Amino acid sequence: MILGTVRGNVISTRKMENLVGYKFLLVEPYYGTKKDMIVAADTIGAGVGELVLVTTDETTQHALTHPSPVDAFIVGIVDYPPEEKKV
Amino acid sequence: MILGTVRGNVISTRKMENLVGYKFLLVEPYYGTKKDMIVAADTIGAGVGELVLVTTDETTQHALTHPSPVDAFIVGIVDYPPEEKKV
Amino acid sequence: MILGTVRGNVISTRKMENLVGYKFLLVEPYYGTKKDMIVAADTIGAGVGELVLVTTDETTQHALTHPSPVDAFIVGIVDYPPEEKKV
Amino acid sequence: MILGTVRGNVISTRKMENLVGYKFLLVEPYYGTKKDMIVAADTIGAGVGELVLVTTDETTQHALTHPSPVDAFIVGIVDYPPEEKKV
Amino acid sequence: MILGTVRGNVISTRKMENLVGYKFLLVEPYYGTKKDMIVAADTIGAGVGELVLVTTDETTQHALTHPSPVDAFIVGIVDYPPEEKKV
Repeated sequence: MILGTVRGNVISTRKMENLVGYKFLLVEPYYGTKKDMIVAADTIGAGVGELVLVTTDETTQHALTHPSPVDAFIVGIVDYPPEEKKV
Repeated sequence: MILGTVRGNVISTRKMENLVGYKFLLVEPYYGTKKDMIVAADTIGAGVGELVLVTTDETTQHALTHPSPVDAFIVGIVDYPPEEKKV
Repeated sequence: MILGTVRGNVISTRKMENLVGYKFLLVEPYYGTKKDMIVAADTIGAGVGELVLVTTDETTQHALTHPSPVDAFIVGIVDYPPEEKKV
Repeated sequence: MILGTVRGNVISTRKMENLVGYKFLLVEPYYGTKKDMIVAADTIGAGVGELVLVTTDETTQHALTHPSPVDAFIVGIVDYPPEEKKV
Repeated sequence: MILGTVRGNVISTRKMENLVGYKFLLVEPYYGTKKDMIVAADTIGAGVGELVLVTTDETTQHALTHPSPVDAFIVGIVDYPPEEKKV
């Protein structure tokens, strides 16, 4: 999964019918750069500034109640930034 | 999903039969570079200059009326460029 | 999909049985670099120098007559290089 | 698969129900950079500093006892760093 | 598919049960850099120094006798390095 920070909302009025009901959030990868920014669907209610876990591609479908054309989905909100250990 | 701007059309006369009926649009990622340009199938009717949401890989199939060999599909037209917030 | 130019053939005598019957073509992404060169299966008959549309990953299967372990497949030959418009 | 080193844990209390029971580990690709850090689900019990094999995308599901929205999964612990041979 | 050169073996004693029987090979992309090195499962018997074709993600499953959590699989051994033609 990708670890990222929610940076804002993406509003789309004209969209596929089976996308109604999702919020679309801009997510900036925690270890990447702004160039790697993605848009992830959300039903958990993640807010701007929160650190989230995003799953991608077809695995998104295992988090949904009905098949939907979304390739990035927020599956968890992370409690605190991870600490990287060198052993 | 990828946020991108429609930059033009791609015309293909010799193509797989189950691709007939789609428009193919050049999409430049909003946060990427021209090097990341992709071609996305479209049925919504997105126009050049519009900001769109593109889903990729097998998740495209959940937006289609029949299975088709397309790995990028325009699932929504975005109302306005997103505002990135730092919290 | 990826827009790319056919650069040559890849010949493999020792290969999985269900790959017999495909031609394997070197494809250089039109917007990428040689570093992004891929090998795509082909049944349309694309020739060296032609501009093609390549679909990737599991979506390739929707273009095939039987399931095959190919993650890139040429689904169309493009009529002419796309014109990018700034609006 | 990706070869990577476990760098720490990612703790998420608010998460999708079908993610309960997995540990989430930060994995730094052995041949990549910190920018390519991913989060992989684990049930084998890999520890910080261990070298692991991570499978990605939908292929993760073939390692799971029930479908789950995880796009990276630790499928093996590597005995020792690989030796690259030039022939 | 990815064209790559086999650089060595990856040995994993503690691994998922359905990975027993595969050899894991380090593969360096022919057109990429060492940073893009991947680990591919093999049943063909590719050796160090050989040039191979690797398919990725869920398409690997179409080469297997049983579903397995591997996202890269060697589907062919290439006869000789490809010649890139400029037309």
